[in-house]
Parts: sequence; C-alpha cells; structure tokens
Amino acid sequence: MSEIDPMGPVQQAQPWSVDRVGIVGMGLIGGSIALDLTKQGTVVQALVHREVTAERARSRGLAQFVSTDPRCLQDCDLVILALPLESLLAPDQNLLMALPELAVVTDVGSVKAEVLQVWQDLHPRFVGSHPMAGTAEAGVDAGVTGLFCGRPWVSTPVAETDRSALEVIRQLALRLGSHWLIADAARHDQAVALISHLPVIVSAALLRAVGEERDPAVLDLAKRLASSGFADTSRVGAGNPALGTAMASRNTQAVLRALASYRWSLEQLEESILQGHWDQLEQELERTHRLRPHFLSE
Amino acid sequence: MSEIDPMGPVQQAQPWSVDRVGIVGMGLIGGSIALDLTKQGTVVQALVHREVTAERARSRGLAQFVSTDPRCLQDCDLVILALPLESLLAPDQNLLMALPELAVVTDVGSVKAEVLQVWQDLHPRFVGSHPMAGTAEAGVDAGVTGLFCGRPWVSTPVAETDRSALEVIRQLALRLGSHWLIADAARHDQAVALISHLPVIVSAALLRAVGEERDPAVLDLAKRLASSGFADTSRVGAGNPALGTAMASRNTQAVLRALASYRWSLEQLEESILQGHWDQLEQELERTHRLRPHFLSE
Repeated sequence: MSEIDPMGPVQQAQPWSVDRVGIVGMGLIGGSIALDLTKQGTVVQALVHREVTAERARSRGLAQFVSTDPRCLQDCDLVILALPLESLLAPDQNLLMALPELAVVTDVGSVKAEVLQVWQDLHPRFVGSHPMAGTAEAGVDAGVTGLFCGRPWVSTPVAETDRSALEVIRQLALRLGSHWLIADAARHDQAVALISHLPVIVSAALLRAVGEERDPAVLDLAKRLASSGFADTSRVGAGNPALGTAMASRNTQAVLRALASYRWSLEQLEESILQGHWDQLEQELERTHRLRPHFLSE
Repeated sequence: MSEIDPMGPVQQAQPWSVDRVGIVGMGLIGGSIALDLTKQGTVVQALVHREVTAERARSRGLAQFVSTDPRCLQDCDLVILALPLESLLAPDQNLLMALPELAVVTDVGSVKAEVLQVWQDLHPRFVGSHPMAGTAEAGVDAGVTGLFCGRPWVSTPVAETDRSALEVIRQLALRLGSHWLIADAARHDQAVALISHLPVIVSAALLRAVGEERDPAVLDLAKRLASSGFADTSRVGAGNPALGTAMASRNTQAVLRALASYRWSLEQLEESILQGHWDQLEQELERTHRLRPHFLSE
C-alpha cells in the first residue's frame, strides 16, 4: 500500500460538487454526520434497515429523507457507509446494486486494511475513512451535532484511489470540522491498535485480575477503596463488549503485535520490581511521565 | 494479624479527648489535615524539617503553630505522622524522642504491614492509618480543605492496639468527614496493590509499549489519534515517579502477587484473540462490563 503525500495536490481546496449525500445507517456516526450536513443545507438521503428505525430517524429530524429501500441512493453523489464493521465487510447485495457507479463511496470503519481489501474491488470510487469520534451511546438516538468537530478524520487512499473522490471526502471532513489526515491503511491499523484497541484489552485484564481475587475480604476492601485511578484505568475495559470484540477480530494481527509489545514492556517493569531495582523503576516511570503529554494533543 | 470486628465497641461515638494535635509534615496530607482541624478550632502544632517550609506553612495559615523543633510536640495528645513512607519507615531519632509517651500516634502511609512492623515497637499507642485521598499536587502548597470528606479512612489495628487510641483515630477520621474502615494490614496492602499500585504499573506499561513503536510514521499517527480512551488508561502510569516507586518498593510482595494475577488475566484475553475465540472474548468483555460498577462506590 503506497503512502500519499499529505501536502500533495489533493490538499488544495475546491468547491464541493456534492448535491445529495446518501448515508447508510443512522447509528451514532451516521446520525451525527446526517445532523451536521442537514444543518448545513445539504440534502441527506438516509437508508436504514428497519421501518421502526426510519420512523425514529424522521422524528429526530436526522435527515430530510429516510427510507428502507436501497434504491433511494440512486441520485446521490456521495454515499457514506456508516455501518458496523461486520455489515461493512459482508455487504448486502441489494445495497451493492443500489450504489450509483459515479458516486463517491466511503466508510467510517475503525480498521482500514480489511475494509480496503473488500471494498477496493466493489466500487471504483471507494475511499477508506475513519472519523475518530464517539460517545458511549449507540443506535438511532445516539447521533449528535458537532461530533466530529476538532477530531481527526483519517483517510487511507491507495495508489489506485480516484483523486477527485478523495477530494470529495476531504471536503466532507472539513465541512464537519475535522482535522484531515492521510495515512497508509496498515499503519493506521497499527496506530489504532496501540492507542485504542490495546487499551481496551489492558484495561479489561485489570478488571479481570481484580475480579479474580480469591480472598473475599480483600475483594470487598478493593471495592470500597477503589478511587479515580482505578476508575480511569478500568474505564475502556468495561466498554461495549461487541465493539471491543469487533476491534480485536477485525484488526487481529495489529492487536496481537501491540499485545506482544505490551507484554514485553510489562515484563520489564515487573523484572525491576522483582529484582528490587528501584532506581531503574523510577527512571522508567519518569520516562512514562514525560511521554504521555505527546499523546494529549487535543 | 487478627481482624477487628468493625461493629465492636470502638464504633460507639465518644467525646473527643484531644486538645492539641501535632502533625509531622505539611505536605498534601499533613497540610490538608491541619487546615480542616484548624478550621474546626482544634489547636494544631505542626512540625516541619526546614525553616522555609515553616514560613510557607505559617503564611498559608495551615496551623496555629509551626516549628522545626521536635520538642514542639511535647504537649500534644495526638501526633499524626504525615511523612513520606521512606521517612516514616526510618524515623529520625529526635522525632522519636520527642513523641509524648501518652499521646496517640498514627501515620498516613499507603502501605500498612511494614509500617506496623516498624512502629508497633516504637510507640505504645501507635495506630496505623491510611486516609485514601489525594490530588496530583505535593508539598507545602498542596494542602486543601475538605480533602478527606467522603473518602475512606482505613485503620489497621492489631490485637495489641490500645482501644482508646483507636477510638481517638476514629474520631479524627469522622471529624474530617471520612468513611471509617477497619482492616487487617496485610489485606489492606493486597487490596491497595490491586486497585492502586497495579494500575500504575499496567498503565505505565501501556505508555512504554506505545513509546517503543519502531515505525516513526505509526508513532506519529498514534500521537495524533490518541483520544480520551488512551488518556484515561495512561493517566496513572504517568503520575509521580517517586510515589509509584515507593508503592512498589514498600508493598513489593502484594504488588508482585497482583502482577502475577494480572499477567494471567491478560494472557487469557490474548489467547482468545490468538485462537479467534470471539464468543469467549465477548463474554469476557461482558463480564468486565458488569464488574466495573462494583468498584465505583464513590
């Protein structure tokens, strides 16, 4: 997969050629994109699976048009596949047939290599996207305005990616207030494994370890004494189980690589403690103390 | 170490027989206790090491009297040793000689077994305490009012502990608004290893693992994409390096036991991913999802 120069010609601003945006899925991401675009005056055509979802999306005013019929996408210049990874990777045949050949098509999936592998052959103007934003909510009631404002929007074009299609996605990201980033899909997947998927496993393992405590008096005391440090470190390990599983199952190699690096890192700290090398432990903790601010750009 | 029945006679409220409280050390904990007691009208005699600290403590109004001379403790009914663990475990001879034999003496250390081992023989009315409260600040400017309000105050008496001394400490904890808890010292140390010391190592190992990424493009992307999940999971691993080291060096056996349990727990999650046992992984994440609220009593 070739890397695209982020300073290349696609960075030049161009007028947006999009009249009608189709959004497939009205969950947190789809609904939030729909709300922002609708507010900006773009015509949004939403496609959902069930009529009850369509009704709820209409009553929330997420989009001008909401339908359960894939043919509703026929006049769209841009179609955003805001589907769960599982549906995105095994797309419905009716959906595929309904995608206009000239439309730009993008997704919002949190892993990119496997998505590209599937979608590169499915549509000539597909561009991989990962808008990095979220809340703890899900479903048709989750969408909010301004979700993407100030957040990164990573796109993962390949050498064959249609440059005008990529520009349409860049304009979309900028219209939603996102920071536009271009990355190689494999590197994107490794980076999100490290900063998003690995923390879920690390944090879940902490909860498991404490939950496995055999002495009921210690466990009871642990529950009473746990405070903000434990609350913060255990937060993402107690998140949406289906989402955590999807991350691991769809980004398996990158997550395993991140876990191997983590295990090695943990073992070195453990070794300092086992050997009583307190100066070394303190130096390591000074290093992590200095390192963290580099990851807090927000 | 015998367990004390928390519903036993020491739970009965009694009038506080304390006229003058000595506090050794005016850091975050000592200064905060001094502020609250002073506000309540208790006479507080503070002992600090350096004259510059004494001046700052006076100008902040932390206590009525601030001295660098240990003899200032002579009229105190209660002396609180608000010292770093290292100083607490190797106490100054002048301090020891200055402690009135009839005074109740307590500490505020975050580990208890080793503190008891040292102090049980040093003073007849010693009671081990661990007020579980803190901020990220340290030093003579760190003390704040209300720091202990609503927070646990664990005391770790042994069979030989003077019951009237224990009652004095219980009254102190209640006056500061703390939840009073009694625990066996070894169990206390195991519980704080699990919910306080283990998270520091787990979180530091995450920062180390990400920092060790060899591909500069991945590392750069990780820095740009890291968001609240990474920020929360990495927070305690980037805390005060000296404090993290002191926890590990003073609670070594409990921390190593917690780490062994953690490693096992992590390996099981890793094994599910390696084997592609996604149902099992999802079940584990459902368990951690249900488990976490039990540790959020605040």
